[in-house]
Amino acid sequence: MTRYQHLANLLAERIEQGLYRHGEKLPSVRALSHEHGVSISTVQQAYQKLEDLQLITPQPRSGYFVAPRKAQPPVPAMSRPVQRPVEVTQWEQVLTLLGGRGDKSMAAFGGGSPDVSQSSLKPLWREMSRIVQHHPGDILNYDELAGRRDLREQIARLMLDGGTVATADDIIITQGCHAALSIALFSVCKPGDIVAVESPCYYGTMQLLRGFNIKAIEIPTDSQTGISIEALELALEQWPIKGVILVPNCNNPLGFIMPDDRKRAILALAQRHDLAIFEDDIYGELANEYPRPRTIKSWDIDGRVLLCSSFTKTIAPGLRVGWIVPGRYRDRVLHMKYATSGTTVPTTQMAVASFIREGHYHRHVRRMRQIYQQNMETYTCWVRQYFPCGICVTRPQGGFLLWVELPELVDMVCVGQQLARLKIQIAPGSLFSASGKYRNCLRLNCGLPPTEQHQRVVAQLGEAIRVAIEWNNAR
Amino acid sequence: MTRYQHLANLLAERIEQGLYRHGEKLPSVRALSHEHGVSISTVQQAYQKLEDLQLITPQPRSGYFVAPRKAQPPVPAMSRPVQRPVEVTQWEQVLTLLGGRGDKSMAAFGGGSPDVSQSSLKPLWREMSRIVQHHPGDILNYDELAGRRDLREQIARLMLDGGTVATADDIIITQGCHAALSIALFSVCKPGDIVAVESPCYYGTMQLLRGFNIKAIEIPTDSQTGISIEALELALEQWPIKGVILVPNCNNPLGFIMPDDRKRAILALAQRHDLAIFEDDIYGELANEYPRPRTIKSWDIDGRVLLCSSFTKTIAPGLRVGWIVPGRYRDRVLHMKYATSGTTVPTTQMAVASFIREGHYHRHVRRMRQIYQQNMETYTCWVRQYFPCGICVTRPQGGFLLWVELPELVDMVCVGQQLARLKIQIAPGSLFSASGKYRNCLRLNCGLPPTEQHQRVVAQLGEAIRVAIEWNNAR
Ligand SMILES: Cc1ncc(COP(=O)(O)O)c(C=O)c1O
Ligand SMILES: Cc1ncc(COP(=O)(O)O)c(C=O)c1O
Repeated sequence: MTRYQHLANLLAERIEQGLYRHGEKLPSVRALSHEHGVSISTVQQAYQKLEDLQLITPQPRSGYFVAPRKAQPPVPAMSRPVQRPVEVTQWEQVLTLLGGRGDKSMAAFGGGSPDVSQSSLKPLWREMSRIVQHHPGDILNYDELAGRRDLREQIARLMLDGGTVATADDIIITQGCHAALSIALFSVCKPGDIVAVESPCYYGTMQLLRGFNIKAIEIPTDSQTGISIEALELALEQWPIKGVILVPNCNNPLGFIMPDDRKRAILALAQRHDLAIFEDDIYGELANEYPRPRTIKSWDIDGRVLLCSSFTKTIAPGLRVGWIVPGRYRDRVLHMKYATSGTTVPTTQMAVASFIREGHYHRHVRRMRQIYQQNMETYTCWVRQYFPCGICVTRPQGGFLLWVELPELVDMVCVGQQLARLKIQIAPGSLFSASGKYRNCLRLNCGLPPTEQHQRVVAQLGEAIRVAIEWNNAR
Repeated sequence: MTRYQHLANLLAERIEQGLYRHGEKLPSVRALSHEHGVSISTVQQAYQKLEDLQLITPQPRSGYFVAPRKAQPPVPAMSRPVQRPVEVTQWEQVLTLLGGRGDKSMAAFGGGSPDVSQSSLKPLWREMSRIVQHHPGDILNYDELAGRRDLREQIARLMLDGGTVATADDIIITQGCHAALSIALFSVCKPGDIVAVESPCYYGTMQLLRGFNIKAIEIPTDSQTGISIEALELALEQWPIKGVILVPNCNNPLGFIMPDDRKRAILALAQRHDLAIFEDDIYGELANEYPRPRTIKSWDIDGRVLLCSSFTKTIAPGLRVGWIVPGRYRDRVLHMKYATSGTTVPTTQMAVASFIREGHYHRHVRRMRQIYQQNMETYTCWVRQYFPCGICVTRPQGGFLLWVELPELVDMVCVGQQLARLKIQIAPGSLFSASGKYRNCLRLNCGLPPTEQHQRVVAQLGEAIRVAIEWNNAR
């Protein structure tokens, strides 16, 4: 982070915390320069950034003042999905979203790709080159079915940060988190079964259920504390639910981290009703808080939690390296891994293992956590600035995704189609529901660096939404 | 191939064809050296090799003579598996076999790994290094769901050699052939369905059926012409069979290539009964004959053949790059790919694409075809030499696998356990049957270079079998 960014963040935080009140005059450039031991131009840059974010306004010849800002938009209320098992739809829409990936001219706010442009990733391909040159035997041959032991040992160590105690033998490497979830699910469920999900729920997981003909029951979910345990309990009394899929840490799309007591409560509920828990921890390492939040798996004493994760968000999607800690389902999971794919690519496994072993991983993740946190602040400011009033916005506790709820009548599927023509891709909320609810919502990828170009895109997005609202009102 | 190997092969062929009769004197070293324009020592090396193979015997002071050899063992007769759908068992046994992979001190005659030690593979890691260094963006990001277009274009071109006409859009890249088969099967079948297989059938495919709870009906199969179409037809009349899995070219484990008329006959049968054909072409490029044999897919006019393949046998297993040509099932296959794994690793896809584009692939495969053909001749000689009488041995038309049928009472599962203690791994025939038939058979991987050490292993194997037979006779 450069000095001016650091300073700008510090000031933004103070404004946010009310240390400088709205309308109050800020310290002079000279005073700040003196206070922080930075140059005049650094302070000027910092003030410029805050001005861009509309947090402060300059007044000619008298300095900078805290801007009279719009009130912070409220967070979305508890969701209220249909309370019965349904078949998942929306595949065409997901396919359209995925189709956008190839198009480099598209502003890809719809996907969930992390920022892979940071220099802290460079050691990764240095490692990969080294491996390719020095270990041809390893990269050409079949690997162990459970995955490379050196990588599993590194993962076991990493997971301790989230309280997950597992040895290399408890871990099975998969081709990404998607494969982990699909193997886990298929080891426990069969077609026709019912599985509970958070609502909204990551569309990839939904499509996985569709692929295996498993019905989804969407459970009301709070944007700050997660799935409603009460609603899940009610559903359990009514339906023969086999398991529940959760993203309890830095949820996709809502960004919450379930409080520890709720994590334990849902585990207790699962024990009472003999449910399996599919815990998707893919964003867990990107929490704002430090140390990172605990996994539900960390309290799992009878092996009913299948922890699924990958390096897709923390390092890069192209690695396709994920894993499962399958608990009591280990034998079936290993068999399903064999049945669905056999072994996993050794090259990227080896690259990740040495990236972690040499300390690059921790450095990189520490950096990305900061970057994403700043990105989200910036994007939240932009949304507040450019989107019309009457919206709700999540306050993510980690990850890099923002969820915006618009007035009931706005149809983001339609708006999205118009935006696609402007080379802007968004994820309409309906992808995150089995039955296409949340059409008035959208998910925004704040992994994209907050450049001026992206600021313009957010402005265009706001404008498109404003037009849609007006058009609705006029009818 | 070195000069002496070339000469040895030539002479071996002449002996095989009867141009030199048993007991006949062979040309003198000097005469051959003159005839072929090679050095004396080259001829001596060639003769030494033929002596090692026990094709010729030296007689002091009078030269080399064609050895009085054992009769060539017969090929296995048409198999006679149980004629009803059964659930697949044998997972523990397969797991044991896979477990041996990690152990480098094991003579791995049980697996199906190709020889990855040839120098013609070197350009592959040169390409991979180059890609890692010059295309970090490509290797870090998600790829197209169907797989990289450049690779699909190369595959489309390759497939023309087998008569398969497909464009890049007709191809979906997968993480190896295992994943291809599993996605293909799961796009067409559901749990409880019945699928017909050749008998014996590659154990990986069997376990895939088990994973998805699909029942297998094993169809009698001839070791030279493939599945019995008549038996399949009878089965179709009795059971609601959804599809048939075939490895028609260089079959694993029997090594046959189905004659073209039988390929067409089975396609016609599938059309009459509305069956899907899962055609596994993984060994198709390694046929002894040139040009390579046609695929069933090449005659498929209504898109009912799902062609599955990979570069596991032709290049290297560690790449995990395979593909499906899904015909009329494209939409479901694409969805199943998304549901089971999302996208595939870009790095190895890119490496393979340039390996093909730069002409290295064709050079390598041409070379490997020759090497494997020679290996199989050598291993066949060794089996003939070291195994007891009364056995049947396949005469593979490509690939690098040999199937040996021993007298009824020999239990290769037990023998295999003893051999494992001697660090020799074999694949007992029972893995190749849903219900553990073929315990008296074994499959031998002739991909391993025929070194002296491996010759000793084959001798040990023969000895273990001889002991088992004697022990049985004594009871
Ligand atoms: C919550 C969640 N789970 C799973 C995945 C899939 O991860 P992978 O790319 O490792 O298969 C994603 C990626 O978008 C995700 O957001
Ligand atoms: C007939 C057959 N099909 C499929 C496979 C699996 O191939 P892959 O390693 O590409 O998944 C093999 C490998 O042993 C095989 O022999």
